[in-house]
Amino acid sequence: MPTDQYSQLLSAITAAFPATLVELAELCGQPSVSASGWGIPECADLVSRMLRKRGFAVQVFTANGVPLIFGEYRHPTSSKTLLCYHHYDVQPEGDLSLWQSPPFEPQVRNGALYARGALDDKGQLVSRLAALDAIKAVTGSYPCNLKFLIEGEEETGSTGLQAFLPEHTDLLKADACIWEFGGVNSQDTPLQFLGLRGIACFELRLKALTRDAHSGLGGAIFPNAAWRLTWALASLKDRFERVQIPGFYDNVRLPSALDWQMAAEIPSQRDYYRQMFGVQDFLRAAQSPAEAYLQEVFEPTCTINGLNSGYQGPGSMTVLPAVASAKLDFRLVPDQMPAEIAQKLRAYLDAQGFDDIELLDWGGAPPGRTDPNHPFVKLAVETAEQAYGKKPIIYPMNGASGPNYVFLKYLNLPVITAGVGHPGGGVHGPNEHVRLDLLEIAIRHLALLIFRFGNDNAPTRL
Amino acid sequence: MPTDQYSQLLSAITAAFPATLVELAELCGQPSVSASGWGIPECADLVSRMLRKRGFAVQVFTANGVPLIFGEYRHPTSSKTLLCYHHYDVQPEGDLSLWQSPPFEPQVRNGALYARGALDDKGQLVSRLAALDAIKAVTGSYPCNLKFLIEGEEETGSTGLQAFLPEHTDLLKADACIWEFGGVNSQDTPLQFLGLRGIACFELRLKALTRDAHSGLGGAIFPNAAWRLTWALASLKDRFERVQIPGFYDNVRLPSALDWQMAAEIPSQRDYYRQMFGVQDFLRAAQSPAEAYLQEVFEPTCTINGLNSGYQGPGSMTVLPAVASAKLDFRLVPDQMPAEIAQKLRAYLDAQGFDDIELLDWGGAPPGRTDPNHPFVKLAVETAEQAYGKKPIIYPMNGASGPNYVFLKYLNLPVITAGVGHPGGGVHGPNEHVRLDLLEIAIRHLALLIFRFGNDNAPTRL
Repeated sequence: MPTDQYSQLLSAITAAFPATLVELAELCGQPSVSASGWGIPECADLVSRMLRKRGFAVQVFTANGVPLIFGEYRHPTSSKTLLCYHHYDVQPEGDLSLWQSPPFEPQVRNGALYARGALDDKGQLVSRLAALDAIKAVTGSYPCNLKFLIEGEEETGSTGLQAFLPEHTDLLKADACIWEFGGVNSQDTPLQFLGLRGIACFELRLKALTRDAHSGLGGAIFPNAAWRLTWALASLKDRFERVQIPGFYDNVRLPSALDWQMAAEIPSQRDYYRQMFGVQDFLRAAQSPAEAYLQEVFEPTCTINGLNSGYQGPGSMTVLPAVASAKLDFRLVPDQMPAEIAQKLRAYLDAQGFDDIELLDWGGAPPGRTDPNHPFVKLAVETAEQAYGKKPIIYPMNGASGPNYVFLKYLNLPVITAGVGHPGGGVHGPNEHVRLDLLEIAIRHLALLIFRFGNDNAPTRL
Repeated sequence: MPTDQYSQLLSAITAAFPATLVELAELCGQPSVSASGWGIPECADLVSRMLRKRGFAVQVFTANGVPLIFGEYRHPTSSKTLLCYHHYDVQPEGDLSLWQSPPFEPQVRNGALYARGALDDKGQLVSRLAALDAIKAVTGSYPCNLKFLIEGEEETGSTGLQAFLPEHTDLLKADACIWEFGGVNSQDTPLQFLGLRGIACFELRLKALTRDAHSGLGGAIFPNAAWRLTWALASLKDRFERVQIPGFYDNVRLPSALDWQMAAEIPSQRDYYRQMFGVQDFLRAAQSPAEAYLQEVFEPTCTINGLNSGYQGPGSMTVLPAVASAKLDFRLVPDQMPAEIAQKLRAYLDAQGFDDIELLDWGGAPPGRTDPNHPFVKLAVETAEQAYGKKPIIYPMNGASGPNYVFLKYLNLPVITAGVGHPGGGVHGPNEHVRLDLLEIAIRHLALLIFRFGNDNAPTRL
């Protein structure tokens, strides 16, 4: 990109920044809580209008009962297509007393915009639209074919999207994908995540009696739901953190030499974890930051998310509980699949004599990784360095999960991250906010990235 | 007891029955919830007045911060002393919407008086006072020395009483004790309980992190409180119901030949348990009702009363919980002691590597048994048969617990049960009530029992 054109792009972004904030505030002011359904149709309408006014043709599908928005811009000559994946739904606001301003009344203070969704994911969506606006302002048009896929149940598991995508591969066909998130670490260094772990969520539920009993009555002779649940859980993972389900590790791929190379560039998070979560002893001793990262992200996990049975109030109560339940999630690494894990878990519980335990499948997503050597990855990294003035840190995989697998498998495209995210931004918590300085830099990065993606011959450096 | 005197006793009980109901209603109308302290001092005053108006000298001690009432009547000539143990506190009312009439506004309907405490323990106390009134009405005086010990924290563990009693053995010296409960089974057959299991209540509490984490972040490397609690619990008892704490069974006495003899007369409860609690498979297969009873009551137990950790709402939440807790009770049999079990439990948790688990001791009581061959037991059984017209069933031990150990050990007296209890009376639940027919029969039994205890030479049969 010629220097004068890049300067024009920066100027266009700066000139439009107040309008960008207004649009973000309007979007964040529209509740869209997928857990309860609050404002979901209204928000879908608003997002559709935002695309249409930019010249996109918009189709609204219904996936799992929820509006799924597809917006498309067809370039007159370009053969290249960029797909942006987003979601317009947000997490519930949680404890309102912890918010300094109402979650759906956006407020700018201390150089940041505060609102539920400011980062996750409305700020991300707006940053990409603002980048496109700037490119158009400078060059007169978008640089390539564009597709936006914007779902309304990312915060509740993307069930509809994961079913929709394999059925609409022609519609969604593209050469590259920008994922719904992206951003910097606590040193404002940009990050590039090239994969997500998979996840499989379950609930184990057990009813051993038709009503609670008195422990003096049945303690010795009645089955106790809490005990059976405890034994079932203890049979799943031993105290050395090894999952005991036969075949659980069958499809686990070890990190490659390239993964180790990338991991060596990733700074250790352990001091941060010690400070933030009070971790005294990590479950694994790491010989190096690289090993620490690979232990954290390249291994599958089995986490108890919750336990519930009997009396939980103050003091004691001599009850023998009739029912008990546990929430459980497995984080999966390539090539583990949620359905495979569900089947192995059920078979193991049965084999262990726990066929009285009901297994509720709360959904999941397979793991997915993008090839770090893909040219689009290199472009994303290069443009990030230009926009942020720092070399990005490349994570071959992120410990979290999302529906990236279907994009990788059915659309066969590279998936990169770029955006306004920053630690401490309150994602999923109170006082979620986007820093305005990072919002502007993210728009610059996205404008550069999209412009260069559409213009192969653009110079790669200033 | 001469026939005409027995007839006079029955007539006196019947004549005073309306007044007995009024007194019971007044007592039940006074809240006295030890869990919250509601009405405790007021109820202690009321009970003191009930004793004083009957000629008792009353001292009110403070035990564990709660009024403990001691009432004494000294007979001019008798050398025999009867001790009655009671409590004036009641369980919380629980869910008010389940009560057909307000718990502290006693109501007589369908031949029963409904109120919190109608059975446990205010109806029992009033039945004994009514028995004494009848004896005095017929003979002009009480038949022996009388002592009433009435505590205010039986429903919360009798902590004060268990400390008070060993320090006041002279004050409480007696020849026999009538326990706070007693009554009939579902066939209106009187029951005689000659012992109580002990109990030791604990909470296991664990804080592994200073705040909840995201399972995608720490699943593989952060300690998880729910997992550690699960493993700790699973280490306490195996799936064959065997407690794994070293030395746990050291002091367990097996049932004697006499226990087996008594057990052979006890009807099986297993059909009732199947119907009431939906038990599909009992933990132990019994060859006979006697064996079923002994399995249920003569073996110590370890019961999880409650589990609490992390997310327990609908669907899934990918949280890694910072804290977890479990409530646990052990039912103890002679000669196990709560302090011994607490020490062994702590040592075992430490030895298993769970020294990060905090052990909260929620109190307990040792097991205690009365010699079935004691003459006072025979008198209680004989008079029950006379009053109820049925041979009582004698239980060498009850599966439940209470502070009888200190009475047996420090006062060295036999402890028997007699009273107004009946199954389905809603003890600890909503709509607690005492059946008026059983109240009158219980007063007869108690009048006969106390009269004959005080008058050695009274004929044993009509």
